[in-house]
Amino acid sequence: MPGLPPTFKSLFRSASNPPATVELLCGWIKSVRLLKNLAFIDLQDGTTPHPLKLVVRRSEESSDVLKQLRTGQSLKVKNAVWKATPTRVQPFELETNASPDCLQVMGQVPTSYPLQKKHHSLAFLRSNPTLKHRSNYLGSLLRFRSCVESSLMQFFDSQDFTKVSPPILTSGDCEGAGELFRAEANAHIARKTSYFGRPTYLTVSTQLHLEVLTMALNRVWTLTPCFRAEESDTNRHLAEFWMLEAELCYVENVQELTKFAELMLRHVVKSCVDQKLNLLPSIFPQESADSPESVVARWESLLKSEWPRITYTTAIELLKKQHTVSQFSFEPQWGKDLQSEHEKWLAAHYNSPVFITDYPRDCKAFYMKQNRDAADTVACFDLIVPQMGEIIGGSIRENNYDILIQEMHRRGMKSEDLDWYTSLRLNGSAPHGGFGLGLERFVSWLFGAQNIRDSIPFHRSAGGTIIM
Amino acid sequence: MPGLPPTFKSLFRSASNPPATVELLCGWIKSVRLLKNLAFIDLQDGTTPHPLKLVVRRSEESSDVLKQLRTGQSLKVKNAVWKATPTRVQPFELETNASPDCLQVMGQVPTSYPLQKKHHSLAFLRSNPTLKHRSNYLGSLLRFRSCVESSLMQFFDSQDFTKVSPPILTSGDCEGAGELFRAEANAHIARKTSYFGRPTYLTVSTQLHLEVLTMALNRVWTLTPCFRAEESDTNRHLAEFWMLEAELCYVENVQELTKFAELMLRHVVKSCVDQKLNLLPSIFPQESADSPESVVARWESLLKSEWPRITYTTAIELLKKQHTVSQFSFEPQWGKDLQSEHEKWLAAHYNSPVFITDYPRDCKAFYMKQNRDAADTVACFDLIVPQMGEIIGGSIRENNYDILIQEMHRRGMKSEDLDWYTSLRLNGSAPHGGFGLGLERFVSWLFGAQNIRDSIPFHRSAGGTIIM
Repeated sequence: MPGLPPTFKSLFRSASNPPATVELLCGWIKSVRLLKNLAFIDLQDGTTPHPLKLVVRRSEESSDVLKQLRTGQSLKVKNAVWKATPTRVQPFELETNASPDCLQVMGQVPTSYPLQKKHHSLAFLRSNPTLKHRSNYLGSLLRFRSCVESSLMQFFDSQDFTKVSPPILTSGDCEGAGELFRAEANAHIARKTSYFGRPTYLTVSTQLHLEVLTMALNRVWTLTPCFRAEESDTNRHLAEFWMLEAELCYVENVQELTKFAELMLRHVVKSCVDQKLNLLPSIFPQESADSPESVVARWESLLKSEWPRITYTTAIELLKKQHTVSQFSFEPQWGKDLQSEHEKWLAAHYNSPVFITDYPRDCKAFYMKQNRDAADTVACFDLIVPQMGEIIGGSIRENNYDILIQEMHRRGMKSEDLDWYTSLRLNGSAPHGGFGLGLERFVSWLFGAQNIRDSIPFHRSAGGTIIM
Repeated sequence: MPGLPPTFKSLFRSASNPPATVELLCGWIKSVRLLKNLAFIDLQDGTTPHPLKLVVRRSEESSDVLKQLRTGQSLKVKNAVWKATPTRVQPFELETNASPDCLQVMGQVPTSYPLQKKHHSLAFLRSNPTLKHRSNYLGSLLRFRSCVESSLMQFFDSQDFTKVSPPILTSGDCEGAGELFRAEANAHIARKTSYFGRPTYLTVSTQLHLEVLTMALNRVWTLTPCFRAEESDTNRHLAEFWMLEAELCYVENVQELTKFAELMLRHVVKSCVDQKLNLLPSIFPQESADSPESVVARWESLLKSEWPRITYTTAIELLKKQHTVSQFSFEPQWGKDLQSEHEKWLAAHYNSPVFITDYPRDCKAFYMKQNRDAADTVACFDLIVPQMGEIIGGSIRENNYDILIQEMHRRGMKSEDLDWYTSLRLNGSAPHGGFGLGLERFVSWLFGAQNIRDSIPFHRSAGGTIIM
């Protein structure tokens, strides 16, 4: 880009065809080591997990410059000479002089600057919400999330999907789940009126609107913030989270849908493997159960074989058998939803993501297609993964107008409120289905992060503050 | 994809290396024409603006099938034979039989189905919010938006940016603009408590949070819904809109920023030109001032020469001169913000997007860098474009802690509320800047759509309803 210094990522890229000198280079000091004739400075610039090593030649008159350097400062470096170092981890180093012409501090730090050279605990980093992303681990996690988003975009482009933006402000509660945020214009609250003339909520899922669009565009997807005023304060729940939702026409059974979801996830995992050197820092925090090596090993193992598929009924049988060996807190029972402990056990049992299909109708939402051959189940799936539990839920949608209306009435729903939605079944409808993937859960699971709050830059959750 | 019929887009792609037969094909009927021995069916499937022509051979016993076909139905077609038609616009047609084995209606339409073969007015389409996206023009507009998003992702990836997700729920009002939506958990409204323990708003701009992230990751961007409880009910305002915001380190003057913004927009326009055949329908609605040809001509002209840059002061001089020739409603005057009529005149005058830089300090936000050489102006820019007016606003950010605090006090702001933000200037700060692009305005302008409400699937705006 004209006028801007090269990113460190681009310097690493150019290692096979290096420039003789790098005229301008900017970054933050990660560490400084002063020797008699030389100084070594590790710089980071946030575009790669790997620090850039700078060698500075000292001289009598220039020592003052070096003595002022401290971790956290932002530094401008001019006219650095490129030296190949083929035998080392970093295949080059940059050399410059300790003159004010070559080294210039752009941004100072106070002596109390909290991020020092050492590795910090996650608990400590979380207590510094404006600085924590400068740590190599949390910075890498954000770059990783970005790579996942980009890979998803490529995938859906390659499959002729249209990316759409359904509304965040809606009049209804898609899932009937209850825990809604209400939105109102500030000026109207004072006047006790309503901006849209009626109560307005933040979306909990864009699915119903996506179904409108899939009936026009065939294959649609979105990546949208969703909101649930959860009261559960766990490491798997956020009040504001990003959800990928996809909806596609001409799928008629749930297995086609699981195949498509697996194809999508494998595409992303493949991108992660391809870019692993740009994605993973060399050291993970001590509290992390994972290491960079085990993360890569997990990615590679995900690509090896097809992921198992079992029905809910089979899952309950397995869980019941296990319950006799070692009791769960909740007894597995056909007709009841799977608990998080059940999901985690199943995924651990298979040591793989597992698709669980065909749940009882009463465990799932009104719009799921009722299986004609198995009483009281619906053509749906959840994808559960080790450690995390559910990351995707999806289904074929009930396409028969009469059955859909009947089901809404059976559940005591006012079908008139959703006339716009049910009318789709009367106007050139097509068999269709889709799913929702919680982005932060997915990113956390792939990266091995224990707390999904680290997978979004500023988390909003029950019991959380909102000082910014 | 296994099990799913090919999209029409993929069939058009395969025209140079066609299959002998297409086993399965699904779409919606756009028109049916019955001749004595043949029937012609135009199908659409929402993945391309171009209909797919199906030729059906009639026979005595199979006429019943054909007589039931109507515009809007969704249709399954089996075993269609591929016939090259090298001399026609569509380089192939698909042929099948009128047997129930080959043609099957998947979704009926009522006789009142409103979308018929003829071209509908935009006003009519807008009155059918669940069906309007099936029209070739509005469907194309959504596909176009998707292509723009994908192109932006490619661009930012190529420039080593990290895509981030700043929060939607915030405690503050970034711009001081006032027109905020407040959000509260439904259960807490009843209890008169607050989910986050304090008033919470929907973001009007993610910039301040982006500045936190740019200080960690160097180059960041986001595409996020933003909310403004506008009372203006115009064709350029939405209460819920998507904003692209980018923030980058090591830009020190506003010209570097305008160069970067131009680079980004040219990348998108280049993608549009490359994919024009997939993006534009052959006919635009009559009310549209544009035609497909003029849209492509505009894209091509945008790529020809660098876009002009003028200062606000120069802009005022030009406007004053024009004001003596033909009066504006608002008199142009140094120190006052440019009106929409002024912006539109300037862009028309240059017949090009125009960067206007260095506005008076009091016209712009507190965080913009004050020009040291020109009293009372700030290092900012707006990009204005013909017909639409402003689509981007950006600036270098004031990086000097003392000047920033002084400016906040001068404006009567409580700087303590933004301690988290201003502290960035004390902790390894770096020169930086960024901008926000209103996605719907940008998409509308490129596509020649007069009303930005058509560039988002379900618009939320002043005076609008929210029945879904």
